[in-house]
Amino acid sequence: MRLAQLSERSGVSAATIKYYLREGLLPPGRQVNATTAEYDEEHLRRLRLVRAMIHVGRIPVATVREVLGHVDDGSLGRTIRVGAALWALPQVPEPDDEDEFVQSAHREVGTLLDVLGWENAKQLTTISPAYRQLVVAVAAFRRLGYDWDTELLVSHAKLMHQAAITDLDFLETHPSEEEKVEVAVASAVLVEPMLQALHRLAQEEETARRYGFE
Amino acid sequence: MRLAQLSERSGVSAATIKYYLREGLLPPGRQVNATTAEYDEEHLRRLRLVRAMIHVGRIPVATVREVLGHVDDGSLGRTIRVGAALWALPQVPEPDDEDEFVQSAHREVGTLLDVLGWENAKQLTTISPAYRQLVVAVAAFRRLGYDWDTELLVSHAKLMHQAAITDLDFLETHPSEEEKVEVAVASAVLVEPMLQALHRLAQEEETARRYGFE
Repeated sequence: MRLAQLSERSGVSAATIKYYLREGLLPPGRQVNATTAEYDEEHLRRLRLVRAMIHVGRIPVATVREVLGHVDDGSLGRTIRVGAALWALPQVPEPDDEDEFVQSAHREVGTLLDVLGWENAKQLTTISPAYRQLVVAVAAFRRLGYDWDTELLVSHAKLMHQAAITDLDFLETHPSEEEKVEVAVASAVLVEPMLQALHRLAQEEETARRYGFE
Repeated sequence: MRLAQLSERSGVSAATIKYYLREGLLPPGRQVNATTAEYDEEHLRRLRLVRAMIHVGRIPVATVREVLGHVDDGSLGRTIRVGAALWALPQVPEPDDEDEFVQSAHREVGTLLDVLGWENAKQLTTISPAYRQLVVAVAAFRRLGYDWDTELLVSHAKLMHQAAITDLDFLETHPSEEEKVEVAVASAVLVEPMLQALHRLAQEEETARRYGFE
């Protein structure tokens, strides 16, 4: 398809597509003559992913380029390709490992991973930003003196594991390896705000069920 | 307790506590003489909530003051007090109701609420920011051409409902009405980053289980 059609099918303006091409977020089309290039379904898919990251995830262009570099690195296995792409997404502040609450949160999350039997996650603790984000969140709870017990953490972790299984099952329905990796990254960006909204809505529903509107 | 002790027990510096007092985020202590005031457990609890909102939730001081106004409004029922407090938290951009994807997302979320039997949430669609956030998230998915089916949405909603039930059960363990409302608001701020981290970690675990590290 031509640029105009790519624009029409994606809902992204021609000027924005040209900007993405210049910034290297979209691979160049196949040049058919001096002024015309031909684009295909792969361009359309990539354009969706770029839109998801920039418009929904509000991720800076330089970070998007970095994420796409990992997505396209066929020399890596899928876990690492998806992982590296997710790890390039915006992250929360790093935990301060000198802090006593952070130190005890490391231990608490370690116990959690043991209880859950998340052997792979345990191997990734030194490199995974998700692990560090969890340590920061647990330390915040404890520092504020909330006595949330580890059982609650285990219960929430199991729910999130179920959500991840559902997401990955959906991923499997995409035919090519490239699509699987791309959809994994787009889902991370798109599913998180959805889960957050569903959680807030569920809290409203359950609060009203228990206490009514009076 | 005196200010120094409140500072020690909360881990918040005396200067910061004085700032919160000036800003009206913390009620004044009971004046025992011209230069000394006495603080109690209620001040400690309120200080935790303020810290959760400002430090973990990164919520502006003016918004914190607004949220606390709702938390303290005993004339409202608990559902509305908690709801009003949560609704004052930072929100995602509003949906553009002229947009065709937003219009179809309204219908899709309507169907979702019917399927789930969330009768209370259905009554809140005109005022709930969580509902609007969900509409925005669903519209983003559809606009990008992802064919996530409604069943997946239902499955994630059920998981989030389970998380909300767990959170509210925990809430019930707090004795007073004031504490219940305060902990509900603090949990919203603290649980969201935790769920997000658990979701990302679960994705890593499940991806590695399925595809290994090669």
